[in-house]
Amino acid sequence: MREDYKRVALIGLGLIASSMAHAMRRAGMKSEIVGTARTEKTREEARQIGFCHRVVETAAEAVQGADLVVLAVPVGAMGQVAREIGPELAPGATVTDVGSVKRHVIRAVKPHLPDTVHFIPGHPLAGTEHSGPAAGFAELFDNRWCLLVPDEETDAEALARLTAYWQALGSNVETMDADHHDLVLAVTSHAPHLIAYTMVGVADDLERVTDSEVIKFSAAGFRDFTRIAASDPTMWRDVFLTNKDATLEILGRFTEELFALQRAIRTGDGEMLFDYFTRTRAIRRGIIEAGQDTPAPDFGRIRKT
Amino acid sequence: MREDYKRVALIGLGLIASSMAHAMRRAGMKSEIVGTARTEKTREEARQIGFCHRVVETAAEAVQGADLVVLAVPVGAMGQVAREIGPELAPGATVTDVGSVKRHVIRAVKPHLPDTVHFIPGHPLAGTEHSGPAAGFAELFDNRWCLLVPDEETDAEALARLTAYWQALGSNVETMDADHHDLVLAVTSHAPHLIAYTMVGVADDLERVTDSEVIKFSAAGFRDFTRIAASDPTMWRDVFLTNKDATLEILGRFTEELFALQRAIRTGDGEMLFDYFTRTRAIRRGIIEAGQDTPAPDFGRIRKT
Repeated sequence: MREDYKRVALIGLGLIASSMAHAMRRAGMKSEIVGTARTEKTREEARQIGFCHRVVETAAEAVQGADLVVLAVPVGAMGQVAREIGPELAPGATVTDVGSVKRHVIRAVKPHLPDTVHFIPGHPLAGTEHSGPAAGFAELFDNRWCLLVPDEETDAEALARLTAYWQALGSNVETMDADHHDLVLAVTSHAPHLIAYTMVGVADDLERVTDSEVIKFSAAGFRDFTRIAASDPTMWRDVFLTNKDATLEILGRFTEELFALQRAIRTGDGEMLFDYFTRTRAIRRGIIEAGQDTPAPDFGRIRKT
Repeated sequence: MREDYKRVALIGLGLIASSMAHAMRRAGMKSEIVGTARTEKTREEARQIGFCHRVVETAAEAVQGADLVVLAVPVGAMGQVAREIGPELAPGATVTDVGSVKRHVIRAVKPHLPDTVHFIPGHPLAGTEHSGPAAGFAELFDNRWCLLVPDEETDAEALARLTAYWQALGSNVETMDADHHDLVLAVTSHAPHLIAYTMVGVADDLERVTDSEVIKFSAAGFRDFTRIAASDPTMWRDVFLTNKDATLEILGRFTEELFALQRAIRTGDGEMLFDYFTRTRAIRRGIIEAGQDTPAPDFGRIRKT
């Protein structure tokens, strides 16, 4: 039987934390949910929506008596939050986070935490292009992966309990080493986001093609890039600054491949292009078979009659 | 009142042509629909589905007595088809195409057509990642743009009739010059497709991150690239080979911007990254306001309760 946490402190009340609260309620957890956010505007918005039992002013206050503390702030703010809550944490509490980068978060957070707590970094691979407390919804984690990053010293019982918690929120859970996590995410998330931001920036910049043409004619492919290029700017700035090496490595590989394809276009090497474009179809099939995307045309934007 | 074409010949029976047939039926058009495709397999599949009144063996046969002929084959095959049908076209017929590149198609097709027909190149900006006769559906063109590319000599009445035809299929119609078309599409479609193919190719290639990891963890951003990277390889090979200059120009701009962002990551210029990521959000808003995408999170993959 699942043993619910008694009190869960959500530090930061954006898309992820608010979705966690909704999903906890959907799962019928008995935990008291205490939330806090940096700005009064966000706290007030969260109070209005009502997904926390209590919304308090500071992180130090929020963690009082909590047996689970979730750091759900941008990666660049994790260290400062850890410094604030360190002295206030209840012995035996589990501290986790939801940051998109793991090595940097461990380096920034761990030194501020007392030895009496269990620090188990985490990363739910879920999100949408919307942000803020109103963007959350209970289904966000359903059938998505949550990666936990324990180390050799991690308490097995604390890990099992956190795993069960994320499963109750709808996730599949897997553990992974911090460096491997950062490389895998550089490929599946960080590089694609930077590339999408770049393509949208180029389109916005061109003088001979007006914004309105780019917008009107976006259904020809471009619009798929604009969804992820509308993601939260603060969060993504921090991701790139803190997963610098892995992201730059993947971008280097990307540029190399792009140059090879450009050369094939320039020299008219149709066979090379055809083979390349055929190979990439298999990955799409794999993603659909793994239940990580919809096979409906256009992501189901169009309904077949 | 709309004056329907009496007989419409669809040359090529893939996603676009089959969707046109479905949309013509939905619109209650009285036209006889005659189709043909290069392979017997495709012709047989189209016969089974039954969206044409007649499926015939050759393009030359299909255009007999047709007052509208639609070339719906890959861009690289347009010239050969035009050569085959040229001597068979009925005087006064309108010939159009649905290719993603216009300057090349005009160069390849026009010399083979008699002066007695109206050649009005076209391009419906609609498609999905699926291809073949079974992929078509009547709603594909709804609220999407169809670009027509007339020149100074185009007959106004023939143009008005073709415009009304595409409108009846659900499209908004706009006319445009061939070179401008090819540049706009390089930005909104061709470069994004090449970039998506490249990113998916890189992910597939990495040694330290397995394919199965790329697939499992694709919901973190990568999967949005895989949809367009699953598009038809023959069609896209031809697009890049025939819209070489505009595509390479946009890719050059893209690489330049990507290098600037990589430099910002390397030097830790958070302000530059933040500003860039903020600017791109506006484009997304514009696309949603223009009705060219859904504002639902994740393209509506997740239903909010």
